[in-house]
Amino acid sequence: MGKIRRNERIGAMVKILSSHPNKIFTLNNFSELFQTAKSTISDDLVIIKEIFDKFKLGHIETVVGAAGGVRYIPGLFEEDTNFIEDICNQLSEVDRILPGGFLYMTDILFTPEVVERFGKILATQFQHTNPDFVITVETKGIPIALMTARALNCPVVVARRESKVTEGSTVSINYVSASSRRIQTMSLVKRSVQKGQRGLIVDDFMKGGGTARGLRELLHEFEAEIAGVGVIISTADPEEKLVKDYKSLMVLKKVDEIQREVIVEPSSWIRK
Amino acid sequence: MGKIRRNERIGAMVKILSSHPNKIFTLNNFSELFQTAKSTISDDLVIIKEIFDKFKLGHIETVVGAAGGVRYIPGLFEEDTNFIEDICNQLSEVDRILPGGFLYMTDILFTPEVVERFGKILATQFQHTNPDFVITVETKGIPIALMTARALNCPVVVARRESKVTEGSTVSINYVSASSRRIQTMSLVKRSVQKGQRGLIVDDFMKGGGTARGLRELLHEFEAEIAGVGVIISTADPEEKLVKDYKSLMVLKKVDEIQREVIVEPSSWIRK
Repeated sequence: MGKIRRNERIGAMVKILSSHPNKIFTLNNFSELFQTAKSTISDDLVIIKEIFDKFKLGHIETVVGAAGGVRYIPGLFEEDTNFIEDICNQLSEVDRILPGGFLYMTDILFTPEVVERFGKILATQFQHTNPDFVITVETKGIPIALMTARALNCPVVVARRESKVTEGSTVSINYVSASSRRIQTMSLVKRSVQKGQRGLIVDDFMKGGGTARGLRELLHEFEAEIAGVGVIISTADPEEKLVKDYKSLMVLKKVDEIQREVIVEPSSWIRK
Repeated sequence: MGKIRRNERIGAMVKILSSHPNKIFTLNNFSELFQTAKSTISDDLVIIKEIFDKFKLGHIETVVGAAGGVRYIPGLFEEDTNFIEDICNQLSEVDRILPGGFLYMTDILFTPEVVERFGKILATQFQHTNPDFVITVETKGIPIALMTARALNCPVVVARRESKVTEGSTVSINYVSASSRRIQTMSLVKRSVQKGQRGLIVDDFMKGGGTARGLRELLHEFEAEIAGVGVIISTADPEEKLVKDYKSLMVLKKVDEIQREVIVEPSSWIRK
């Protein structure tokens, strides 16, 4: 490879950094890749930081110390607020009301562009808690858990409703669903979590908080710590959840099957 | 915003293009964003194309015609082959053997960086089939389906093992699992697929092909077309699957619980 121009280095570095959120790249990494002095790479990074700020593409953070370098941190910007408001409007369409007063949101929870953005926003909120993994329970929480984990650069662990013979030995707990009052089971493969690790609980929906509390109890069985609880939508009613500290992106205020009315709003901390 | 330099435009365009695989951006989009002449943007794009080729970061493709512009297409390169070989080595470790002769691969299937790469490789193979959506069945296929859909810029649809009241009316089919010979059920929410749409079937594992055939039958019920079938791992035995045309990234040749031996190899089309 011949002499590499600044344009080329910048383009390549932006691609590499933004494909690996929260992963630290040293000046040496880039210096070797481009066969260029570290001082030159350092100048390039100043320009890259400006680009990310100017066009609101997230943050490029300098990490000092022996394991230091630079990393890309996805940001929460005005666009994110607008995005959440837009999703609230979509979810408030009356033809989403299902028999029984449920709200159809599966299409939104399985659109990659949308869940990637949810995941980035949740990751920004929880990155300071330094989770070792993201944990959810099958099925609808999986895409959001995966995209949150992607932005945090850590793996996902999925609790199952029933244990599968194809995954090896499991630990199971029983818990009570807060809304249905029914006893449910969830199990987690033994080898998937180590003692002392920190798990971030992520789910699509929270009504009473029973599932989140079940996941918390499951982590206790593994002697793992809870980094936090993040959900996409929580209901306004009941106000008291079984889990206290949680962060939700949106609040479902009302689904009225008779009056044909839905109200979904951004959580207060999201608003401008 | 003042005058924007070429460096800045290139950095920003690389980030925007690579965050939206297969999505077409017109010269006008960029021309307006940077308040720069289209001819200048066109020159920038020549440089960007060279960067992507030189550092093997994928392809930037020019799309001609009324809806024309440029788009980022994730590529299959030597690194992808190396990556698949590396995963094969990881999966061939004997401590992955589970009682019953199963292979533990859940950790790999839920590591975002890994499944994102699987998804990009599958998307590259199937993008010419123009799928409207990716379809899988819960649970372990979901991360790969989501990342394949992300790279193809389309939604994911997930068939369930049992229908849920919280998602509205469903269509269900019964099918026979090729390996266990047991009758199973899968169901799909009615409003999730429209007549005439094309679905790409994606799953983590294929032994007899019963699940893939079940998904195919489910799509027939919706009068939807099948764009293709892609899986991460297929078994060498049985050689004859219930589904003919499928593409797998890796082949599981052997899991011997007594001899403590596992052999996983890249599929022949993946090798250098």
